[in-house]
Amino acid sequence: MKGNVIIGQSGGPTAVINSSLAGAVKACWKEGIRRIYGMHYGIEGLLQEDIVDIEDYITSGQDLSLLKRTPSSFLGTCRYKLPPAEGNEDVYEKIFDILDSKNIEFFLYNGGNDSMDTIKQLSDYALAHQKKQKFVGIPKTIDNDLPVTDHCPGYGSSAKYIATSMKEIIRDNESYGVSKPTICIVEIMGRHAGWLTAAAALSKDIDCSGPDLIYLPEVPFDIKDFVGRIKELAKNKKSVVVAVSEGLQTKDGKFVCELGNANEHIDAFGHKALAGTAAYLAGVVTKETGLKSRYIEFSSLQRCAAHLASRADSDEAYNVGFLAAKAAFEGQTGVMVTIKVESREPYVETYSLFDIHDVANVEKKVPINWITNDGTYVSDEFLSYARPFIIGRVPPYTAGGLPVHLTMNKKRKHK
Amino acid sequence: MKGNVIIGQSGGPTAVINSSLAGAVKACWKEGIRRIYGMHYGIEGLLQEDIVDIEDYITSGQDLSLLKRTPSSFLGTCRYKLPPAEGNEDVYEKIFDILDSKNIEFFLYNGGNDSMDTIKQLSDYALAHQKKQKFVGIPKTIDNDLPVTDHCPGYGSSAKYIATSMKEIIRDNESYGVSKPTICIVEIMGRHAGWLTAAAALSKDIDCSGPDLIYLPEVPFDIKDFVGRIKELAKNKKSVVVAVSEGLQTKDGKFVCELGNANEHIDAFGHKALAGTAAYLAGVVTKETGLKSRYIEFSSLQRCAAHLASRADSDEAYNVGFLAAKAAFEGQTGVMVTIKVESREPYVETYSLFDIHDVANVEKKVPINWITNDGTYVSDEFLSYARPFIIGRVPPYTAGGLPVHLTMNKKRKHK
Repeated sequence: MKGNVIIGQSGGPTAVINSSLAGAVKACWKEGIRRIYGMHYGIEGLLQEDIVDIEDYITSGQDLSLLKRTPSSFLGTCRYKLPPAEGNEDVYEKIFDILDSKNIEFFLYNGGNDSMDTIKQLSDYALAHQKKQKFVGIPKTIDNDLPVTDHCPGYGSSAKYIATSMKEIIRDNESYGVSKPTICIVEIMGRHAGWLTAAAALSKDIDCSGPDLIYLPEVPFDIKDFVGRIKELAKNKKSVVVAVSEGLQTKDGKFVCELGNANEHIDAFGHKALAGTAAYLAGVVTKETGLKSRYIEFSSLQRCAAHLASRADSDEAYNVGFLAAKAAFEGQTGVMVTIKVESREPYVETYSLFDIHDVANVEKKVPINWITNDGTYVSDEFLSYARPFIIGRVPPYTAGGLPVHLTMNKKRKHK
Repeated sequence: MKGNVIIGQSGGPTAVINSSLAGAVKACWKEGIRRIYGMHYGIEGLLQEDIVDIEDYITSGQDLSLLKRTPSSFLGTCRYKLPPAEGNEDVYEKIFDILDSKNIEFFLYNGGNDSMDTIKQLSDYALAHQKKQKFVGIPKTIDNDLPVTDHCPGYGSSAKYIATSMKEIIRDNESYGVSKPTICIVEIMGRHAGWLTAAAALSKDIDCSGPDLIYLPEVPFDIKDFVGRIKELAKNKKSVVVAVSEGLQTKDGKFVCELGNANEHIDAFGHKALAGTAAYLAGVVTKETGLKSRYIEFSSLQRCAAHLASRADSDEAYNVGFLAAKAAFEGQTGVMVTIKVESREPYVETYSLFDIHDVANVEKKVPINWITNDGTYVSDEFLSYARPFIIGRVPPYTAGGLPVHLTMNKKRKHK
């Protein structure tokens, strides 16, 4: 008889990360796994032996449906970076002791680059030390910067939120027509990869002009050129809307947000926490041109808006969760489930497994040839790539006019 | 035979302002009005004779349905303040000349306090100078600060957006549990009235703890007390979420956002454009407590998110538009349509007309006894008041995964 399963969620939450959890739980039920454990707050919680029994909360298909409609990590998350095994054997032995004590044989971890690094280190350690556990990664990141996979669950729903909100913002900004032009600068997440910012282009359609300019972090940002383009646009348009990545850098490698007086933080992975790019640029525009400007930051709304989740994204998140569990049950370890798109129109995707060593700690950026030559927009290739990801809705269950979420506040089943 | 109709939209857009336009158009069709004109960009456009024929764009019930699902002012808006009639007779005569030249007998204007002032001045002038035109106001403001009416169309949909997003933000903020507490400060619109900020409390339910603190502009804000409460909350909670109004002022009448280095603008009505309250307070929290903090501004998203429009709000917006036109056809002038709530549970509303002189330029604030004694939350009375406004959805029509909007880019009918 197979051992037990533990599932963890790591890194920034997404609107559909719980769909992957739902898929993994379903696969466990199908396999007849005795106990399905959850890491409470990822591997950081695991190290503190903070482990929950998922079936205290989720016991039916109805629970899974509500779980899929619940944004942000149901189990809680962390940004904990596992130290290298060499010299930290005590940490690794502690993890395996905890797993053994609960007869856990299958370890599923749902996250981005840093989480796949965790899978790699644990599976390498297990192989080197004859441990029985299997480690499989479930991809997740709104940033879409995981290599190997065509795209990443979580991205589609954020892209849908961004494109929908952008469409509404453009309508709002266009409504003042007689007074002076208004320049609206919208800041979108993405430190080094511009996938999310590029998604602003999806708003362009017969009923929406789309943003006037789109700036990705893949291309060095030239402030003088930017101000010149704004001036030129404002000659003929009352509404100018610009999408900028939070991670824009000037040619000499300085983050635009650092040019002002924005605060700078360093997170647990050593990443700089960026904010203030749009605010800074709005200030520059008004100062240099005298035009009215304002800024909007999508902030965490772009990763937690389950009420706008994409059906395509939610389904794929579910599938990679299911298939990760299945792969582990079949004896795979040190692998991540990936998505391959066989055809974009009609959209047909397939799934496979990739050696985690090819995944961890490589960031996939938007190809330079998908960005226009002047660096101010994305090409039709990007639009063809991304359009399928935002199709369809996962309408929330509602009560009193608000979405209902599944929480750990109340146990469903008492043992 | 009755003369023609002109309709204008004024002030900040809302998610349901076009529902009022749809209601007014429907009433015109029912009355058999020959020409239905629209002011392109409100009265500012009218003064430039920028007038459109609404039936160039809207000719069917299907068009009305799509119009109801289109956020922001379909006709364009303005923030133009009509000067007093005395000494500006030329402006008024010009307006009446334009109206006469198109045989316009009925003037419907959809807006907030400033727009109702426009209705008052024009109807007073018409009565004093024996003009035939009738002027009727259609209430609209996300701020809910219009007096006389129980509440105002536009508010419910913004409240629904705020409560839904707040619920999602709280889930997001709660997902990190092992690391240090994170203080998230969310800034919500409302210069002097806290109705929108209060709506954050609607997120509190069995599956959501709601914001920990809610600060409205009706109560002077004490920064020292605020920091003390954050410290106390962070002792027992990993996630602290605070809702603050953009218009918070200290006891000596200073706007909190002005305490930092936030920019200050003055809009056309002489209002200060506020921004930066949450950003400033997040900085104060980190400086004074060492706790991790972040801020979120809902910005214009809270007024243009038609994809989250409330059914109750959309229906009421439609009804006040319809009834304003009907009142004008019946010979009323210098009045605004108002909503009275006969019963909150079950929710039963009725409509009546109010003399515009009792409406214009008075701001309705949240009653002090609906705010807790310590000034950090709203009472159950507020919740009972506001809950009916967010009920039900107006699901957008979608194509390619995005909402479809009706625009003036393409004429539907050629004459």
